[in-house]
Amino acid sequence: MTHASRINAVRNSMTQQGLNAFIVPHDDEHLGEYIPPYAERLNWISGFNGSAGAAVVLADKAAVFVDGRYTVQVRHQCDPALFEYHHLIAEPYLDWLLAELAPGSRVGFDPRLHSHHWHRNAEARLAASNIMLVPVDGNLIDSHWHDRPVPASRPALLLDQEYSGQHSEAKRSRIADTLAAGKIDAQLLTQAEPINWLLNIRGRDIDCLPVVLGFALLHRSGAVQLFADTDKFEGLDLQVHCGQDVTLAPVGELEAALQTLGEQGARVQLDPHTANAWSALILSQAGAELVFAEDPCMLPKACKNPVEVNGSRAAHLRDGAAVSRFLAWLDNRLQQPNPEQEDEGTLADRLAAFRRQHPEFVEPSFNTISALGPNAAMCHYHHDNGTPRALGQDAIYLVDSGGQYLDGTTDITRTVAVGRPDDEMRKLFTLVLRGHIDLACARFPAGTGGLQLDALARMPLWQQGYNFDHGTGHGVGHYLSVHEGPQRISPKGSMIPLTTGMIVSNEPGYYREDGFGIRCENLQVVQPADTDGEIPVFEFETLTLVPFDTRLLDVDWLEPKHVRWLNQYHQTVWEQLSPQLSGDDLAWLEQATRPL
Amino acid sequence: MTHASRINAVRNSMTQQGLNAFIVPHDDEHLGEYIPPYAERLNWISGFNGSAGAAVVLADKAAVFVDGRYTVQVRHQCDPALFEYHHLIAEPYLDWLLAELAPGSRVGFDPRLHSHHWHRNAEARLAASNIMLVPVDGNLIDSHWHDRPVPASRPALLLDQEYSGQHSEAKRSRIADTLAAGKIDAQLLTQAEPINWLLNIRGRDIDCLPVVLGFALLHRSGAVQLFADTDKFEGLDLQVHCGQDVTLAPVGELEAALQTLGEQGARVQLDPHTANAWSALILSQAGAELVFAEDPCMLPKACKNPVEVNGSRAAHLRDGAAVSRFLAWLDNRLQQPNPEQEDEGTLADRLAAFRRQHPEFVEPSFNTISALGPNAAMCHYHHDNGTPRALGQDAIYLVDSGGQYLDGTTDITRTVAVGRPDDEMRKLFTLVLRGHIDLACARFPAGTGGLQLDALARMPLWQQGYNFDHGTGHGVGHYLSVHEGPQRISPKGSMIPLTTGMIVSNEPGYYREDGFGIRCENLQVVQPADTDGEIPVFEFETLTLVPFDTRLLDVDWLEPKHVRWLNQYHQTVWEQLSPQLSGDDLAWLEQATRPL
Repeated sequence: MTHASRINAVRNSMTQQGLNAFIVPHDDEHLGEYIPPYAERLNWISGFNGSAGAAVVLADKAAVFVDGRYTVQVRHQCDPALFEYHHLIAEPYLDWLLAELAPGSRVGFDPRLHSHHWHRNAEARLAASNIMLVPVDGNLIDSHWHDRPVPASRPALLLDQEYSGQHSEAKRSRIADTLAAGKIDAQLLTQAEPINWLLNIRGRDIDCLPVVLGFALLHRSGAVQLFADTDKFEGLDLQVHCGQDVTLAPVGELEAALQTLGEQGARVQLDPHTANAWSALILSQAGAELVFAEDPCMLPKACKNPVEVNGSRAAHLRDGAAVSRFLAWLDNRLQQPNPEQEDEGTLADRLAAFRRQHPEFVEPSFNTISALGPNAAMCHYHHDNGTPRALGQDAIYLVDSGGQYLDGTTDITRTVAVGRPDDEMRKLFTLVLRGHIDLACARFPAGTGGLQLDALARMPLWQQGYNFDHGTGHGVGHYLSVHEGPQRISPKGSMIPLTTGMIVSNEPGYYREDGFGIRCENLQVVQPADTDGEIPVFEFETLTLVPFDTRLLDVDWLEPKHVRWLNQYHQTVWEQLSPQLSGDDLAWLEQATRPL
Repeated sequence: MTHASRINAVRNSMTQQGLNAFIVPHDDEHLGEYIPPYAERLNWISGFNGSAGAAVVLADKAAVFVDGRYTVQVRHQCDPALFEYHHLIAEPYLDWLLAELAPGSRVGFDPRLHSHHWHRNAEARLAASNIMLVPVDGNLIDSHWHDRPVPASRPALLLDQEYSGQHSEAKRSRIADTLAAGKIDAQLLTQAEPINWLLNIRGRDIDCLPVVLGFALLHRSGAVQLFADTDKFEGLDLQVHCGQDVTLAPVGELEAALQTLGEQGARVQLDPHTANAWSALILSQAGAELVFAEDPCMLPKACKNPVEVNGSRAAHLRDGAAVSRFLAWLDNRLQQPNPEQEDEGTLADRLAAFRRQHPEFVEPSFNTISALGPNAAMCHYHHDNGTPRALGQDAIYLVDSGGQYLDGTTDITRTVAVGRPDDEMRKLFTLVLRGHIDLACARFPAGTGGLQLDALARMPLWQQGYNFDHGTGHGVGHYLSVHEGPQRISPKGSMIPLTTGMIVSNEPGYYREDGFGIRCENLQVVQPADTDGEIPVFEFETLTLVPFDTRLLDVDWLEPKHVRWLNQYHQTVWEQLSPQLSGDDLAWLEQATRPL
């Protein structure tokens, strides 16, 4: 089925339902960062396979909306004869609809795929121009998507307390107390990560994100109704694992459960930005009182307990050995003939193979960014969206990758010399690493938000008139999503205080368009610091254990404190990794961690 | 008249007007930071003379509300037989009123002395308990205050363009354009600083704040109606100075002007946090449409033009010579017998005398904080609120002072050795100065707010487990208020981008209760920096020119970059000040600016 015929099929359905437009967002019903293949409706209708965006189909035209990361990619993937291209942020599709449609028009949307917040806002904006937003019953794509992938049916995993560090009962009772304090009868949970955290379960429903997809209702008593594919729990006793007050039902029963809450006139709390409009509609139409607040699992989930932190340390020890073996192999490979037989793809595969040698490794935590030379200047580069670039022609190589282990999630970027880096590359690498070190060395009192620390990582670049156009640090889960909130280190970042157990990345970078790209990324966990002072302060403990490439350094751009930090870090890496390595790998590590 | 009899007199008026309570805020009708003596109603009723607070009088009791700076002072100044004490922030007086008063009670307030925002909020909160907020006609204090000071009648000054750098016409037309763009008919201006800035006038209505008090209406055409004491403009031609479309009328005519706007159904913009409730009531009752926004003069006023920046440089050159002469004198005085004959008061007077030697000096820009030993640990110490402490018994002395000059406003804190500072004092002084230097060295791209830079000044203290409990930097006016917004460098600070021409203080500190206090403060102006990089960045140019006391340094706590900065700064101070000094003062400066 061509994209043209797909669009026509959707237009036929639109006509039958009296719709002048239909919105196809990237999101699925959980509104999370990752979606499974069977939810790739935007890709099905348009061919665009990026991680964010939307398409809008009208009777006589269609448009696809993507953000700055995808303005090039969308031109490769979407036929201009079928789609206009617009910028998702600068030219939002609601504006486009308002410009294209006449008063009295009807815009169809699937309320499961949009947040309650979006729905309220879009409805009001369109209504002001006398355009009606119409929830469709059954997605107009699904009825025409005949070769739609079947949802994964890989079994769920009951995560042992040896990994989770806290029983579900304790987690649930803690959050239920906050519900009781707010006179909330039930909390609707719609994102996979908080549900999997709350019940100490995991799954393989989505690549890179080890979750069971589902919905849950957490009641004021602490009881949880989980709505998920029950087949995945076959042979597993969720109630023995979680407690008798945790029940499992098929996803199809969620609607009835919401209706029951409504009929009871319950006060139901949901996060308007992550709960879908469908559930909010069901609840409010059935008579529930909606209370809007951030998902109360997010903050406790972000603050890892000591068992989770220990697990993360162990995962990073393993991951550090794998990445170091890869870097040792790469240096060796560059000494061999015909380096051009390797490319970004084979390098990524090789790195994955080193990780897979560890039995605790489950899967990558995201798609590896393996980028040579100018490709590294594209922050969200993926070598599969074109021809992978061959080794041997560039000076530097950037590799951003991570692993999911049963005891933790890793995310590391190293930028390494694979040719002859020039003075400017070395200057910029050194400035980036200097910013990384300044942030890594930070200490700060309770109440400090990531927004207050972000400038530390940028200042060395700012001093010389450079910057990088992404956040400095994101939260990282524990054998969960490699991106999690609410903490964040960013100029647009949050004032959520950084506190004990939060894991954040520290990843300043520099990107020279059509030239090269640099990023230095470690994960670090917030811990209380030991001082002789008057007030308690926090510091970062670095989790990641892989040498930085000192061949890319120009020490003239460092102060003594940076050299001290780097030598100390390399000393730690040597002590921690050397027992795991041998032969050439060990020799490589010895020279890579030698003090400056 | 005793405070008891004053309270009784107010209670009699309350009975006559059927009021169960009357609120006496510190503010005057302009709701600015400083008030003139005739507006010290809170002091008249309670004896409390701090710079913020409120009293509430009920039929049978009264209470005074002050913030953390004044919890000690209020106990010295207010009779506990007459007043309960409460914390202004932690126990707000609205909460107290709600707890004390029965439903049906009537609370009197003078709508000229409260913001529109306060009024709306207080009215709603009290109404929820069936308590009525009643605007009184004529303040209940004023009718009993028989020896009330007469408003100052010192003449206004028309500030020459040689000082202001921009004609009022240009300023008015620029802001009028923004009004036109917002379809606003007129902007109500109620604070003294924006009005004086807009019309390039100054005055002597309040000590330390060189303004003519008044109100103004800026019309969409750019025309301004100024409402002020016309006597102050006798012999001055405001229209020749400002333009024909600037008219002057007595303050009493403001009400009629607001009513006229109302009758025309005008859209009138005001800042709900700084415009008083009285003007908003008049306008809306007369039929005006109120539009709420920040005062549009604040941002352009904060961004000094090149003439103002040059003026500030000149003012700081003069001020630096005066402060340096004082520090030279102080060092010399400590070598003479009987240092105890000097105290915090005589030191402050001596410093003022050095400033007064400059003919361009107008007045101090705030009350000098002259604090020896433990007194310096109180951030808002004033030696007149007790017995000034004598010189000779302490190790360090903190002096925070500033001057108003026709071409600029200064604000400087130096902490100097006046005895034998111990290792801990030197460690903490060095950490404070190091933070000062790290902030002074910052460069940052457009869009960076003070909140993002604040941590730079605190990090050296944070590293060792210390902090200070005030903002790092405030805006400073040009021959105007020593405190101005909207920019600010603070952990609670603003994300208003720092940009060319903004003057901010850089004043980290450290305070050891009952021990000592340290603060290192320079003013600095934001300027474009010159780099070889890719993006424009700003930097700070330091305006203040006075040596830091290197006898208080422990260089082990500095990195080489701090030593380089300090030597460079002292070199500049020497080059700039030495031509103004001679004899012992010059010899003092030579040794005080010697490289480390």
